[in-house]
Amino acid sequence: MSEMLSEAALDQLFRSARTFNAWLPKEVSDQQLHELYELAKFGPTSANSSPMRVVFVKSKEAKATLSPFLSEGNRAKTMAAPVTAIVATDHEFYEKLPQLFPHADARSWFAGNQPLIDTTAFRNGSLQGAYLIMAARSIGLDCGPMSGFDNAGVDAAFFAGTTIKSNFLINIGYGDASRDLFPRSPRLSFDEACRIA
Amino acid sequence: MSEMLSEAALDQLFRSARTFNAWLPKEVSDQQLHELYELAKFGPTSANSSPMRVVFVKSKEAKATLSPFLSEGNRAKTMAAPVTAIVATDHEFYEKLPQLFPHADARSWFAGNQPLIDTTAFRNGSLQGAYLIMAARSIGLDCGPMSGFDNAGVDAAFFAGTTIKSNFLINIGYGDASRDLFPRSPRLSFDEACRIA
Repeated sequence: MSEMLSEAALDQLFRSARTFNAWLPKEVSDQQLHELYELAKFGPTSANSSPMRVVFVKSKEAKATLSPFLSEGNRAKTMAAPVTAIVATDHEFYEKLPQLFPHADARSWFAGNQPLIDTTAFRNGSLQGAYLIMAARSIGLDCGPMSGFDNAGVDAAFFAGTTIKSNFLINIGYGDASRDLFPRSPRLSFDEACRIA
Repeated sequence: MSEMLSEAALDQLFRSARTFNAWLPKEVSDQQLHELYELAKFGPTSANSSPMRVVFVKSKEAKATLSPFLSEGNRAKTMAAPVTAIVATDHEFYEKLPQLFPHADARSWFAGNQPLIDTTAFRNGSLQGAYLIMAARSIGLDCGPMSGFDNAGVDAAFFAGTTIKSNFLINIGYGDASRDLFPRSPRLSFDEACRIA
């Protein structure tokens, strides 16, 4: 049976973790991006469908390709971030189910049922995006997730000719708490968000 | 700056964590459910919108209400779990933005734009569901998330007369690794799921 993580770990993952808008001038290595994915991939998805696909935008050229599709308020901080992950979703994820869920014909549960495909892709691709955020924090990186961008533009620039569609973006690096860090916004209390039945 | 978490913590959160189908006969306290939420609530959401709402189904009566809406394969294990969280989403989340995002009129970004409301609710409610899974693992609990149930039936039974809709379910307790634990299914490799641009 597992124990509770240390107070320091709970702080790092949840209580002290913040959405950063400014970044220290410190690179994120390709090795760290691999470490990140190698943790995040284990998070649970429906029928192990694992629909998330990620482009880690790191080079000047790829950042320039991304730039015009960012909302005005997201542009400067994203250009300055060491890495921007385009968290995307493969809407033909079910074609990989013979590999990912070998003990049953899970492909047949989805193929041809477009509403189920799209709902499963969006729900589970989003879950995996959250696992990616938690994995980044777990290895000592900070995140700045964002939804404000032109999804269709990003899809045309990065996923043309595929069944992959962008979901949201995550700036990744080492957050600079001395700049552009908003005060922590309030959260809903347990009684506002939850009940025990 | 943060450090990498311990190997044991990374195992507990990601590498050794499993989706359990059988549960040890050990209760999950209301206090633990509060601890769980008090961590998960800090995970980032778009404009701090925090659309997730949760019913922790714990009593025999509430379990009996849930039971008929479960898919056949999910029923017995869910009835046996100490707690089943109904992870749901408030599609009028934007009415709480004056409280949750006090430094701007974020309510006006959403009100009246139903496609944006629904996309934001589903994406961010799902992110928060993943934070709930990671928070449960962080405090030493195991999870069994599921999508196989009659959402409309659950909504009518638990959320009638509200703007809250069910998203997915999470059985929560202490997993029994000696029963009904499938072998770990394969995951996509980095190169299958990601690229660095």
